[in-house]
Amino acid sequence: MIEFWFEFASTYSYPAAMRVDDVARRYGCRVAWRPFLLGPIFRDQGWNDSPFNIYPAKGRYMWRDLERTCASLRVPWKHPSQFPRNGLLAARVACVEDGAWLPQFVRNVYTANFAKDLDIADPDVLIGCLDGLVKDPKTILTAASDEKTKSRLRQNTERAVALGVFGSPTFVAENELFWGNDRLEQALAWAQSHASES
Amino acid sequence: MIEFWFEFASTYSYPAAMRVDDVARRYGCRVAWRPFLLGPIFRDQGWNDSPFNIYPAKGRYMWRDLERTCASLRVPWKHPSQFPRNGLLAARVACVEDGAWLPQFVRNVYTANFAKDLDIADPDVLIGCLDGLVKDPKTILTAASDEKTKSRLRQNTERAVALGVFGSPTFVAENELFWGNDRLEQALAWAQSHASES
Repeated sequence: MIEFWFEFASTYSYPAAMRVDDVARRYGCRVAWRPFLLGPIFRDQGWNDSPFNIYPAKGRYMWRDLERTCASLRVPWKHPSQFPRNGLLAARVACVEDGAWLPQFVRNVYTANFAKDLDIADPDVLIGCLDGLVKDPKTILTAASDEKTKSRLRQNTERAVALGVFGSPTFVAENELFWGNDRLEQALAWAQSHASES
Repeated sequence: MIEFWFEFASTYSYPAAMRVDDVARRYGCRVAWRPFLLGPIFRDQGWNDSPFNIYPAKGRYMWRDLERTCASLRVPWKHPSQFPRNGLLAARVACVEDGAWLPQFVRNVYTANFAKDLDIADPDVLIGCLDGLVKDPKTILTAASDEKTKSRLRQNTERAVALGVFGSPTFVAENELFWGNDRLEQALAWAQSHASES
């Protein structure tokens, strides 16, 4: 098993979310989907915006690199007109339950943000992302604002910090951290070769 | 041809420097070695220290990840007792001339810093790194302080900024930037597939 820690506003988490299940299957590995928020972690580092906005050279590189990455993975890509988008509500929806619908919902949200240029903070966009996956999208969206759900997301973020997570995507395999979409295969290889130890 | 932009204080540049020539050869590609300084670039971003020191979670991850990377590449590794080390003099030595000795000198300096825990700001350490590569290491070290050499390093750093470089190692292949040791193969593949266009 590997844990996939993701924040919906994160650009490199988009290709990671799109491919993590398929690649993990090839390694005979199960994926635990772990939504969390980068905002509080960034604020602790003194950032009130994405580092890609704060440091322009890094930002320019990221947009170009992400475009190349998506092209090589054949993942659709459209430069979002707003960045970063507020992923709070989407992350809460992802915390409602660890249901069978979760992975596809996550992929739909990332696709909305980075391939369809839709505002993932908009409840209607999220209802669209749940459409066809659950019986009643509106019930899930209402449950997203339950105190229990909010607290689950806060706990996830606290656990991410405790694990040493500082960016998204992060993969955790047998207590080892692997940061970045391009480290997915390495995380899975680690999980595979160290699985017998645990 | 790919350009290999490196700063001697940079941790991930160590495995990159050790393998860049070998890997490039497999792609039928020549490497242009480009020493520059990250200090002025970091200062422009408001940092007066390595981001790995400023952001502890990022730093902890980097040390562990670098250890894993060196182990998997079978590159010797010893956690340096000082970080970052001042690579100014070493970078000036690397700017004296684009001689046949340069790649091995660069590998020796990185090995001194990250496998032997030696202070690469010490002229005697650098003389050791030149030993056996040039006829008279002391002459090279004296030339490192020439105004012409200093100016060459400043120009390199300015060119790095102009290219959009914000970290080390950075590979430049046909005007495309690839940042990080783990992007070397991608940079070479890019150089290979776009070489006919230029």
